[in-house]
Amino acid sequence: MFDHIRASGPVSRAQVAKDLGVSPGTVSTMTADLIEAGILREHAAPRDPGDVVRGRPPVGLAVCPETFVVAGIKIAARERSGILVDFAGNRLATSRQPCADRDMAAEAHVEGIAAMLDAMLAEAGRDRRDLGGVGIGLPGFVDHAAGRVFWSPVLDARDVDLAALATARLGVATRIDNDANLVALAELWFGKGRETSDFAVVTVEQGVGIGVVLGHRLFRGANGLGLELGHTKVQIDGALCRCGQRGCLEAYLADYAIAREAPAALNLGPDAALAIPELIELLSQEAAAGNEAARSVVRNARRYLATGLATVINLFDPKLLILSGGRMRYDWLDRDALAAELRHVVIDAGQGPTPLLVHEWGDLLWAHGAAALALDHLTERVVTAPREAVA
Amino acid sequence: MFDHIRASGPVSRAQVAKDLGVSPGTVSTMTADLIEAGILREHAAPRDPGDVVRGRPPVGLAVCPETFVVAGIKIAARERSGILVDFAGNRLATSRQPCADRDMAAEAHVEGIAAMLDAMLAEAGRDRRDLGGVGIGLPGFVDHAAGRVFWSPVLDARDVDLAALATARLGVATRIDNDANLVALAELWFGKGRETSDFAVVTVEQGVGIGVVLGHRLFRGANGLGLELGHTKVQIDGALCRCGQRGCLEAYLADYAIAREAPAALNLGPDAALAIPELIELLSQEAAAGNEAARSVVRNARRYLATGLATVINLFDPKLLILSGGRMRYDWLDRDALAAELRHVVIDAGQGPTPLLVHEWGDLLWAHGAAALALDHLTERVVTAPREAVA
Repeated sequence: MFDHIRASGPVSRAQVAKDLGVSPGTVSTMTADLIEAGILREHAAPRDPGDVVRGRPPVGLAVCPETFVVAGIKIAARERSGILVDFAGNRLATSRQPCADRDMAAEAHVEGIAAMLDAMLAEAGRDRRDLGGVGIGLPGFVDHAAGRVFWSPVLDARDVDLAALATARLGVATRIDNDANLVALAELWFGKGRETSDFAVVTVEQGVGIGVVLGHRLFRGANGLGLELGHTKVQIDGALCRCGQRGCLEAYLADYAIAREAPAALNLGPDAALAIPELIELLSQEAAAGNEAARSVVRNARRYLATGLATVINLFDPKLLILSGGRMRYDWLDRDALAAELRHVVIDAGQGPTPLLVHEWGDLLWAHGAAALALDHLTERVVTAPREAVA
Repeated sequence: MFDHIRASGPVSRAQVAKDLGVSPGTVSTMTADLIEAGILREHAAPRDPGDVVRGRPPVGLAVCPETFVVAGIKIAARERSGILVDFAGNRLATSRQPCADRDMAAEAHVEGIAAMLDAMLAEAGRDRRDLGGVGIGLPGFVDHAAGRVFWSPVLDARDVDLAALATARLGVATRIDNDANLVALAELWFGKGRETSDFAVVTVEQGVGIGVVLGHRLFRGANGLGLELGHTKVQIDGALCRCGQRGCLEAYLADYAIAREAPAALNLGPDAALAIPELIELLSQEAAAGNEAARSVVRNARRYLATGLATVINLFDPKLLILSGGRMRYDWLDRDALAAELRHVVIDAGQGPTPLLVHEWGDLLWAHGAAALALDHLTERVVTAPREAVA
């Protein structure tokens, strides 16, 4: 019910009851708890301008944005980025901090994060007591529920109790998760997935990531470790992947895969050290200009992406498929050509093609996702125990 | 709660409360409704033989098997098979009936099913009034929720309202579903999945099927049409599949795929019309005897199966993976070799390999699954409206 009100904006109790198929009494009882906990409030509900108004104006319910603020921190190679948002997801402050390329001590990351939190709270005119939670996202194998990192390229050790470490040092409940789940949470809380109960988000950047939302909840797999689209096999004995296996989707699509093929297509020497965005830009230009080798690289990446998306559609049958990402732009793959390719590799069970949406976020996507993680956790605590004080 | 008691056998209220993390009062209230509806009853709960017994013997709760009977019917090419079971899944009667190879009128199928029901009820000494529901399974694209068949090889028309047609003719609530979902329901209700909340079942027979259970419920995808593992792509531009696309998992694994390769490996002439089980038996023998071509067919099928299973593990991360099926035997693929192959293509996120179980059912698997479908539906009606009369 809370998720529905949050997504719908100001909405009347009667409408909530109708939308969710519950009694108006149930809505009143449950929302009373949420209003008392300070996370919902009453508003004048919007009317259509042409309505003939009689009697009392309808009263709508909406989320109180100012009740809590949360911070999201993304740890990546070379940089930590952070964002401070209120309960409605409005951005209050941001922060960036350089860090080691990889293999850094967890304690050093947490110290850096503490400084980022102080800077963002100061920028927003808030203090530590206003902070309802922190979410930290990082690449690798992360057990969200246990708060443990089995392995991450940004940490110098395995099996790190990062959530406990951060909670103790930061003095506020801290949750951790991996990159792929962050992007789905970002879409669920702030993005295109707000109105959709069941959707999948696929990102193509340094790796290929997936996040799946089922019934308005992030699906992390039965063991809670998240899903691995990038290492599903699309070609037995195929291209070598950085995971050590062969034929992984990621080995054809991620930025290191493009970097492997692009120099040959563009006739670049071994010393032409171009960054991936530049390589992709060059590839697009050359393909448009008729360079057949460049066209082949693009066409191949598109076909493999379509194959991976088809697997997602075949196995989850989502209501919406979102291509999202902070850095890689999808226009070089040509959305229409991608949709056409997708139709060739998906089995049509009679309901027509799954809607495909491209959503480019810019750099703060991952930090937004980490903030969504903190909001998700905070909401759960508040909604399931609305009469208790929330730390 | 009902599902938990059904799966646990006689279990005390205190144990149910502990297992589900709810209060004993909640268990008492909810089970009182189910006892009143006649689907649960009190039992003496089992004790450990060494227990020192003091006071009243503990009272356990268990499902009443005799309350309802349901029938499951599987429509396949050439034959319909049926089973009558009680509420605890005990087999009361079975029936088989020849039918057309394909393209038969839905009305004719339903007439045949009516006769099968009469025969099975008579065999079990029951009558139509005892019948709580019917489940019908068939291959093709089936919308379970709408009760419609978009397309099936066993029907002569598209877009058939089969559930409504059968409910009207049979005079009892009838649900329909496709093959792949039936096998997961059979495992959930009667098989290896009873004690596991999250598992996936993969079948390899005429096609490659998958059913996924998440949180004790069958997951049908967001649009309710079920999942398609068989047509996920494992090789771009690969082997031709009967769906018309190339590189589908099924094109390397299903019986028609084996039938395509086996004759060459076995040096059979075009007139050696062997059935698939005989072909597979021959292949196994030849491979064991050192025939390299036969070994290659077996090795290839095993590698592709491992690839498909790895995709399931990567995307659902189930607690248990079951290989199931009524007809095809898995021993020709060598379970240990398959498990070893699987370790090579799954990403290990630190929790070790997913348990792999082979469960061979025999011919009545699919009918069992259809009966589970009827039980599932009946339970939902009874549990959600326990005080109403159930038709």
